[in-house]
Amino acid sequence: MSDNLQCRLAARPVGLPDASTFEMVSEPIAEPGEGEVRVETSHLSLDPAMRGWMNDVPSYIPPVAIGEVMRAGGVGRVTASKHPKFSVGDEVTGLTGVQEHAILPGEALFKVDTSLAPLPTFLGTLGMTGMTAYFGLLDIGAAKEGETVVVSGAAGAVGSVAGQIAKIKGCRAIGIAGGQEKCAFVVDELGFDACIDYKAGDIKAELKRLTPDRVDVYFDNVGGDILNTVLTRLAMKARVVICGAISQYNEAETKGPSNYMALLVSRARMEGFLVFDFASRYREAAIELGGWLAEGKLVSKEDIVDGGVAGFPDALQKLFRGENVGKLVLKV
Amino acid sequence: MSDNLQCRLAARPVGLPDASTFEMVSEPIAEPGEGEVRVETSHLSLDPAMRGWMNDVPSYIPPVAIGEVMRAGGVGRVTASKHPKFSVGDEVTGLTGVQEHAILPGEALFKVDTSLAPLPTFLGTLGMTGMTAYFGLLDIGAAKEGETVVVSGAAGAVGSVAGQIAKIKGCRAIGIAGGQEKCAFVVDELGFDACIDYKAGDIKAELKRLTPDRVDVYFDNVGGDILNTVLTRLAMKARVVICGAISQYNEAETKGPSNYMALLVSRARMEGFLVFDFASRYREAAIELGGWLAEGKLVSKEDIVDGGVAGFPDALQKLFRGENVGKLVLKV
Repeated sequence: MSDNLQCRLAARPVGLPDASTFEMVSEPIAEPGEGEVRVETSHLSLDPAMRGWMNDVPSYIPPVAIGEVMRAGGVGRVTASKHPKFSVGDEVTGLTGVQEHAILPGEALFKVDTSLAPLPTFLGTLGMTGMTAYFGLLDIGAAKEGETVVVSGAAGAVGSVAGQIAKIKGCRAIGIAGGQEKCAFVVDELGFDACIDYKAGDIKAELKRLTPDRVDVYFDNVGGDILNTVLTRLAMKARVVICGAISQYNEAETKGPSNYMALLVSRARMEGFLVFDFASRYREAAIELGGWLAEGKLVSKEDIVDGGVAGFPDALQKLFRGENVGKLVLKV
Repeated sequence: MSDNLQCRLAARPVGLPDASTFEMVSEPIAEPGEGEVRVETSHLSLDPAMRGWMNDVPSYIPPVAIGEVMRAGGVGRVTASKHPKFSVGDEVTGLTGVQEHAILPGEALFKVDTSLAPLPTFLGTLGMTGMTAYFGLLDIGAAKEGETVVVSGAAGAVGSVAGQIAKIKGCRAIGIAGGQEKCAFVVDELGFDACIDYKAGDIKAELKRLTPDRVDVYFDNVGGDILNTVLTRLAMKARVVICGAISQYNEAETKGPSNYMALLVSRARMEGFLVFDFASRYREAAIELGGWLAEGKLVSKEDIVDGGVAGFPDALQKLFRGENVGKLVLKV
């Protein structure tokens, strides 16, 4: 335990990031300063939003600077602490970055209770992923019992939780995912009512067949043609939740939804959100999500890849190729 | 008084409608049946929404059939009545269609009081146009005192009223319109704080200069590039009101707003509406709008063109070329 391997941003990517986007740097493990804590990371979260953080454009959070450790959520164990609330051995989560050892102010870390669920689940269902699904579906989407909810990226991290919450709340849940295997997972393991394989053909016809009462809430993780198609199927007063647009993040220009005037015809709204705005209510969501998990109503699926910090570029490619099922997590 | 000249839809237009889209037909003036009223139309409303009504696609209202009298709002005088609530000489408004004499069920007509304003104003500020601006800005847009409101099509029928209501409610109102003359009208006669001439150059830079606190409410009548540009300037929790998209109605394919992910970054919403949904509150809006008109707080501007029923195709072209200032009305 003398070196800290870090994955730093080496260049602004054009299109899909690859190994040349990052550089691996080893530096000596540092000691925490006053009020700081050192965490040995065990798992890192892979998120579609990471692509936006690499662009040098103003957004909801500053871009990662060239030469800076790549931003990432992580979980791990405290190995040194100069903060009164944390002791060596505590299990914690926070924005550790893609590195083996992170030094963070105590205020930026949260203790987790691994008697409830294993550590990686605190990056998924009991982490930002679960919070995003929870507040996106219930607050922004305002999904109500008896309504039809459509979720894209249904086999992915947020989508898999959003659809399950829809079912728990008494909605009809229709997923959209790529490939037979993912669709089977979404229906058989997650309990969605149906799942449309967008790679298999005519999404529009399938969507029409599966939503006889049209779509009250569309939880969008993908953007592009799928968003545009679902817009043609909105129910009156429908809510379109803009959570992400993974199909567009590596494109030079984002494709806008040409059917957006469906919002007028259906008196519908399209709304974006960021989970950070709900920070004051994380506790409420964690209690409810944790309860469903304990009762077996909610399946938490993590897709854990080995490879350590050096494996980050490959793991990110896996994410953007849509090869993960459930929450993609990198084991450090 | 023996013939009724009608403008009927002859063909589904591709692109901008012209004379070949319609046929002029004269038929004998008919007598109203039981419960019906005959109205001699004096003025007809020209509306961007008319373009959508000509397309054979499902929407919020059935398309006008080939051979049917073109749908239009009108005002006029009752010339025969078999409905207990209407007498000869009453001044009324309703969906008369583009014809000199309309027979309508009494329930589809509303009496107007020309002691408050001249007849054409009941197609504009005190008609559907004013209602659209009122509910779009205050209900869907939820504009509040101190906020910055941007209105496109600011010299047009709905836009000119929406911006004035914004000012009355204590907002900062920035218009977007085409040409120096319209912009001068918007600022000097309607009292907007500023107006951006989209034909003069860099809308984005002008918008940035004029909205130091960004845009809380964007009332969109035009769609296309202007919508896409305003999306880059949204304030946190902004509301984008989708009222129309006149720049796109004659295009083969609607241009989607490629910057729609700004909704996520700004935690903003984009919402469509139709004025008909507020029918139960028309009276409330009419009283408030009429009051502002009487107090001189609200300027009602009608652009009245002669030409009668036969002049309808030309008047419609004037509308889609953006040549009107204020509410475009055809004198029958």
